[in-house]
Amino acid sequence: SQPLTLIAGPCVLQTHEITMQIADVLCRVNQREDINVVFKASFDKANRTSLNALRGPGIDEGLRMLEDVGQKTGLPTTTDLHTPDQAAAVGQVCDLLQIPAFLARQTDLIVAAALTGRPLNIKKGQFMSPADMQYAVDKASGTVPQTGDSGGVMLCERGTFFGYGRLVNDMQSLPLMRSLGVPVVFDATHSVQQPGGLAGSTGGNREMVEPLARAAVAIGIDAIFFETHPEPDTSPSDGANMIHLADFESMIDRLLRLRQTVMSL
Amino acid sequence: SQPLTLIAGPCVLQTHEITMQIADVLCRVNQREDINVVFKASFDKANRTSLNALRGPGIDEGLRMLEDVGQKTGLPTTTDLHTPDQAAAVGQVCDLLQIPAFLARQTDLIVAAALTGRPLNIKKGQFMSPADMQYAVDKASGTVPQTGDSGGVMLCERGTFFGYGRLVNDMQSLPLMRSLGVPVVFDATHSVQQPGGLAGSTGGNREMVEPLARAAVAIGIDAIFFETHPEPDTSPSDGANMIHLADFESMIDRLLRLRQTVMSL
Amino acid sequence: SQPLTLIAGPCVLQTHEITMQIADVLCRVNQREDINVVFKASFDKANRTSLNALRGPGIDEGLRMLEDVGQKTGLPTTTDLHTPDQAAAVGQVCDLLQIPAFLARQTDLIVAAALTGRPLNIKKGQFMSPADMQYAVDKASGTVPQTGDSGGVMLCERGTFFGYGRLVNDMQSLPLMRSLGVPVVFDATHSVQQPGGLAGSTGGNREMVEPLARAAVAIGIDAIFFETHPEPDTSPSDGANMIHLADFESMIDRLLRLRQTVMSL
Amino acid sequence: SQPLTLIAGPCVLQTHEITMQIADVLCRVNQREDINVVFKASFDKANRTSLNALRGPGIDEGLRMLEDVGQKTGLPTTTDLHTPDQAAAVGQVCDLLQIPAFLARQTDLIVAAALTGRPLNIKKGQFMSPADMQYAVDKASGTVPQTGDSGGVMLCERGTFFGYGRLVNDMQSLPLMRSLGVPVVFDATHSVQQPGGLAGSTGGNREMVEPLARAAVAIGIDAIFFETHPEPDTSPSDGANMIHLADFESMIDRLLRLRQTVMSL
Repeated sequence: SQPLTLIAGPCVLQTHEITMQIADVLCRVNQREDINVVFKASFDKANRTSLNALRGPGIDEGLRMLEDVGQKTGLPTTTDLHTPDQAAAVGQVCDLLQIPAFLARQTDLIVAAALTGRPLNIKKGQFMSPADMQYAVDKASGTVPQTGDSGGVMLCERGTFFGYGRLVNDMQSLPLMRSLGVPVVFDATHSVQQPGGLAGSTGGNREMVEPLARAAVAIGIDAIFFETHPEPDTSPSDGANMIHLADFESMIDRLLRLRQTVMSL
Repeated sequence: SQPLTLIAGPCVLQTHEITMQIADVLCRVNQREDINVVFKASFDKANRTSLNALRGPGIDEGLRMLEDVGQKTGLPTTTDLHTPDQAAAVGQVCDLLQIPAFLARQTDLIVAAALTGRPLNIKKGQFMSPADMQYAVDKASGTVPQTGDSGGVMLCERGTFFGYGRLVNDMQSLPLMRSLGVPVVFDATHSVQQPGGLAGSTGGNREMVEPLARAAVAIGIDAIFFETHPEPDTSPSDGANMIHLADFESMIDRLLRLRQTVMSL
Repeated sequence: SQPLTLIAGPCVLQTHEITMQIADVLCRVNQREDINVVFKASFDKANRTSLNALRGPGIDEGLRMLEDVGQKTGLPTTTDLHTPDQAAAVGQVCDLLQIPAFLARQTDLIVAAALTGRPLNIKKGQFMSPADMQYAVDKASGTVPQTGDSGGVMLCERGTFFGYGRLVNDMQSLPLMRSLGVPVVFDATHSVQQPGGLAGSTGGNREMVEPLARAAVAIGIDAIFFETHPEPDTSPSDGANMIHLADFESMIDRLLRLRQTVMSL
Repeated sequence: SQPLTLIAGPCVLQTHEITMQIADVLCRVNQREDINVVFKASFDKANRTSLNALRGPGIDEGLRMLEDVGQKTGLPTTTDLHTPDQAAAVGQVCDLLQIPAFLARQTDLIVAAALTGRPLNIKKGQFMSPADMQYAVDKASGTVPQTGDSGGVMLCERGTFFGYGRLVNDMQSLPLMRSLGVPVVFDATHSVQQPGGLAGSTGGNREMVEPLARAAVAIGIDAIFFETHPEPDTSPSDGANMIHLADFESMIDRLLRLRQTVMSL
């Protein structure tokens, strides 16, 4: 049975020390046969709630840090891009390019990312239906005829707008997007966001991360995405949704035991 | 580990023959140690989309049929009631009383049902938050001081309004309602309804029943609810959402294997 | 041009004094040629959030009070009913029978109400689409072949579930329900409810009542519904959504001036 | 009383002939004292549903066309931008810069647009609450201390995600956003979109444009936005939502008569 792809890392690149602390745990997790880890961190949080919120080291320094992680750990890396002109540079360094959910309808961004030849992880917009993600897939595969079943595109469920201040995961989206012929990712971190939940930033509920991750694994997914941090509440972004690094391996172990049963059903 | 409660049956009582055909399969399922089956069927579909839709045998004949099922099979039974004056009669026959989702705010109905002394399965209204179900629990437990941890009330997730024609399961509702101190049921049949999806009746998507059931089991539930029928497409109600009786046992077996793993995590 | 029907009153019947204080203002408003007032008050709040919330004088005393208002003021009256067995008594006293939104799918309630021969005001369920209200109309008109264009049924927009704790008015529902061939009512009071907004009861936002009422009048409606009270914050129910009685006439005057322009466009 | 700002034009720039045909009508409308017209057209539809959908003439040719409209008609112009690097060029030509709804959270885009010194029309994201638009305002006003009450920012209601395939206008957003101290625009064209409603493109319902526009005017707005076309069904984008150019002036006349009454209340 196919290993689970685990996309994980801090939300945003901070110090070298924190980055490597997280990468070390991910390396250990990656020694399991039933998992393939991809290291994820953002170089720029381009859509923070507030103007003065911290955003990250920027593309140049950020890509250097991601390259360094890749070289030191051997892990493939991924990051999100925000404008088409960032695609080439990101594609030089990262093994997987992530299209943010808010930008899932920006044709030029998907096209530029696809032209790098790297596989894409396109997050479903909070305002989009699972079926309409077909068009996002087509924007990528129509640009560069891909090899392989999925045309090099993965689709990611990360929660849908459900009234002000709350997201909901329509778990039906997992089989629905898989029926488009692509691997499906579940983003267990951003699914528990509470937009506007904190004054000037996005709130969240860490307690719901593992329950939702279990649900997604039970339904059947190809990859899962978590943000983790040694001290989540000090993270400049998404701290309320993150798993403590100290809890990470045991949670992954539980999810993989669950997945093993699911694959045997 | 606690057996899973399985609430199952046809949607609505039809002929004795169909009823017993379903009950026989449920008896066989009930021989497993890890499951407790409750037979469920409605005597009246009181909220059909259309005036002329079939509604069932009515309370007198319906309760006779349920009593008969109980006597012949030894299975406990449950049904839904629609007005307070039905509570006493239903409480004479059924072991568990179900409060319909549309009626989850009707105080007198909950009070009358609680006064029978029977445990209640209150379905979360499509228009209610998990937290607000606390008040429904209190309406029951404030009426009859119950024994036991949950005060004799179970809460049931059955989908929430998500724009016209579509329900969504907020899977966060399962841990949220469990945190109210009550057992939680997942209704895998009505969760896949598509209100207004068919001309003059409610549509649905049977393909999504098992994926959602797996997700709920993986998160952790105390009971699960399915409607099943030897020929679902001939059922007067909810046929599009029902599991074929021929597929029922194998699906339950998969869910119980999943649950066994979940309980061991 | 057709006068606007104004359905108004306190939420729930309290003392004779408060009732007559409100009725006096409504009588004065009713002297205008461009308006027809119907006095509305509930005898029982059957779906309060909490078990111990005040509910009203009950059907016997309540209907006596409504009859008294009718006799003393000459105003037609309306109230909401909750079970089919209340229909006949309510139909003896009230000129218009209101079906609550939560109960908009209860076939027997609509049928019983229709059998009284009185016209019905069916509130659109928070969980229903405008198009699906056709079936509610048919339940009434299929029971008693009505005279007149609308078959004696009015449909009322009162807000739709929009995530936890919030309703939204889909203003498209007004023309959509009107296209079903029935007069349309806008409930400006319950549209601004915030379910679960207060501890153990429903919150609301009185500031939004007039803006939404203006919007509905501008789109084109046949009737409008407000709750009003001399001291809204002392009302047992829906106080946060109510208009102060002292502000009532001037608001109605503004709405009628707006309507006059709308009718001339 | 303040004139109404009318933002109008075709969706996307097509031929010079069509552009001038629309601009001529808008010039005629602009001769009224109670209205200020701003000509709007897009040079690039950057978020079309499908890869192969027509997108427009591009920024260079598009800005030339907009400049030409401005010179020939004397009308101020506006257009939407999609990446920060477009801001300077757009700011050279257009009098008002529009931030698309999908991009309402992209900090750099708002900052770059604000740095041009031009006023901004920021559309509320389909996934954002009215209150959270405060942060979008702050991103602009924190960048360039503006003169005037609103800091040079307008906020635009254009519909909110309401389940798959449907938007809803929360009309409460109009007073709520106005309470942030900025002028408020109602986009009557995109509010009636039906995402995913057509195979490979966005559907819509032109019949609802005027009802919603009337509702917004009745609540109180500072500006209103329509797309119009001599042959809407031939428009490459948003045709189903557009008003026929032949119907445009009479609709505006009705809305202004309504507004005159509203201003007098």
